[in-house]
Amino acid sequence: MKTSTGVRRFDGIELDSGRIVAPVDVAYETYGELDGQRANAVLVLHAFSGDACAAGPSPDGRHRGWWDSMIGPGKAFNTDRFFVVSSNVLGGCSGTTGPSSINPATGRPYGASFPQVSIADMVRLQKMLTDSMGIERLLTVSGGSMGGMQALEWAVSYPESVASAIPIATTHRHSAQQIAFNEVGRQAILADPDFHQGDYYGAAGPERGLAVARMVGHITYMSDSSMREKFGRRRRKLADHSDLFEVESYLRYRGVQFVSRFDANSYLVITRAMDSFDLTESADSLEGCFERVDSRFLVLSFTSDWLYPSYQSQEIVRALRSRNRDVAYVEIESQYGHDAFLLESEEQTPLIRGFLENTYQRITAGSRALGLRM
Amino acid sequence: MKTSTGVRRFDGIELDSGRIVAPVDVAYETYGELDGQRANAVLVLHAFSGDACAAGPSPDGRHRGWWDSMIGPGKAFNTDRFFVVSSNVLGGCSGTTGPSSINPATGRPYGASFPQVSIADMVRLQKMLTDSMGIERLLTVSGGSMGGMQALEWAVSYPESVASAIPIATTHRHSAQQIAFNEVGRQAILADPDFHQGDYYGAAGPERGLAVARMVGHITYMSDSSMREKFGRRRRKLADHSDLFEVESYLRYRGVQFVSRFDANSYLVITRAMDSFDLTESADSLEGCFERVDSRFLVLSFTSDWLYPSYQSQEIVRALRSRNRDVAYVEIESQYGHDAFLLESEEQTPLIRGFLENTYQRITAGSRALGLRM
Repeated sequence: MKTSTGVRRFDGIELDSGRIVAPVDVAYETYGELDGQRANAVLVLHAFSGDACAAGPSPDGRHRGWWDSMIGPGKAFNTDRFFVVSSNVLGGCSGTTGPSSINPATGRPYGASFPQVSIADMVRLQKMLTDSMGIERLLTVSGGSMGGMQALEWAVSYPESVASAIPIATTHRHSAQQIAFNEVGRQAILADPDFHQGDYYGAAGPERGLAVARMVGHITYMSDSSMREKFGRRRRKLADHSDLFEVESYLRYRGVQFVSRFDANSYLVITRAMDSFDLTESADSLEGCFERVDSRFLVLSFTSDWLYPSYQSQEIVRALRSRNRDVAYVEIESQYGHDAFLLESEEQTPLIRGFLENTYQRITAGSRALGLRM
Repeated sequence: MKTSTGVRRFDGIELDSGRIVAPVDVAYETYGELDGQRANAVLVLHAFSGDACAAGPSPDGRHRGWWDSMIGPGKAFNTDRFFVVSSNVLGGCSGTTGPSSINPATGRPYGASFPQVSIADMVRLQKMLTDSMGIERLLTVSGGSMGGMQALEWAVSYPESVASAIPIATTHRHSAQQIAFNEVGRQAILADPDFHQGDYYGAAGPERGLAVARMVGHITYMSDSSMREKFGRRRRKLADHSDLFEVESYLRYRGVQFVSRFDANSYLVITRAMDSFDLTESADSLEGCFERVDSRFLVLSFTSDWLYPSYQSQEIVRALRSRNRDVAYVEIESQYGHDAFLLESEEQTPLIRGFLENTYQRITAGSRALGLRM
């Protein structure tokens, strides 16, 4: 089902800030086959700590892709019918150019000198990737959390290139509380003396700070009730006969595990991109941004998600409806908190499958009616 | 209105763990006058980072007590009628013996050798203090958050010594999520290389870790909507012309400010005491613990408090009612999240004032009827 994995290099990319990153690499994977009309391409967009491996075995064979339950033959993103593209975001640390990449000007990792990127910059690089694949118009762009921000940015920045968008458990801009949780993570990293102003490559790096940052993240991804169910007040004995609440050992484990796969500078750059993202900056209002939007929307949120609460999705839906855009919204009943967009595949699958089929029929019928050669 | 401030020394205290702390000091303040019957004494119990100064100017004159809006002439705890006692908890760092106190056995601060204390140990020391003041029975014990845990522990451990209890925004035991947020704070401190296994006195100490820990705390004390109202997405320019979200600079400021007044070892000891607190351990069930309780209860919670959600107060109320205890419960509408117990004095005042008056009338009438000399 995985039809390609690789890294595509482009001469460079100009950022919103005017800074240029050159050259720029994009790590990507594809699943399924692009049809003759090039009308069946789907772009999936990962969340904060994701990577290009959205489905199937990871390069090291240790785990499966972050949306493996949603992408594959007969799944929500049915690879028997659709061509699914996934890539690692600009500023990341899993194959796409980011702070840990070598700066050709110095021969050393960018570190602190890597420019701040925006969600729009991430999307611009994704556009370069899909253009290079000969895809003129995507059937849909979809992702949860930061992936949903990218889906919204795609629909607003490239209306002619996106037939539909499926933003999940996301917002058009972070609230003070969402910024605050990210800031705690950043401060935990900056407080670590091994951070060395971001130029720590070749040395230990701010591993303790990064682990603490990840612990905060994990609490916000779960719900009060899912944590109660998963851990309650159960304790486990340690080697030294002291004991520990299971939730404590889980968070410590996840923190340490994260350090082995994620770069602290990418943590800073990507969380700042999320916090700075504000779709309304491209217009005077959210309604205004959606003026030029030409895609259909399926917006999903989850009842127990307190990090990206449903009211944020509902703001997006109201703004789209105020401009008579074609939008469907479903608030899915779930216990899993923000993690639900990764876990509730059974509930999301029929919604996404139906929406994709319907969109595919419309655009292919439409193009036939217009006698276009696609 | 402040009638005394001081530190009372006792030969020692035996902890639940069997460990002994000797001698043990208790920093306390009193407001108002004890009446001839000694029937008008109220004990207020501070939350995690509080101290003995509940009302009036602080010793350094820099701020007012943590419940200044609730304690004083004509206030909820009316010092024209009631004698209010406040003390710093065992394990604290504001005058009561804790990890930063000198261990007489070594002549150096206890540091890591200070024994873990429990909420019941804190209450036992408070009982020693009120006994030493000649108070046989308290009119009420009241506090929010960890102060509410102490109020519950008082009612269960010393039923004959407590006529009523007012636990506010609290729980009879921490959920996995509440433990998790405390654990992140602890890990931020333990990750700081200046922690030196807790024996950092005389040196800098884990200031950066403690500041990060406090930042997490502040987010959990506020609500999504109160943060939106207070900060929104407003930014402020820095000296270096970069800018920062106001919520970021607020959290950094509060973090740094906290370091100047709080001890990291006390942070560890007190948060562990909160996480380990489980009222049901003294019986087979919460209903069971309340079998021997002889106090009237006024239980308060706040609609936007997501750290100590109302359902936790409602569990306490249901258990008390199942044993036909005299309990009133009010869920107060508030935007302020967990901080509401410190901020919503206007809403709390009439409830507490009426409850206190009523309780006072009953016990004095009751004692007259029984012809007791009080």
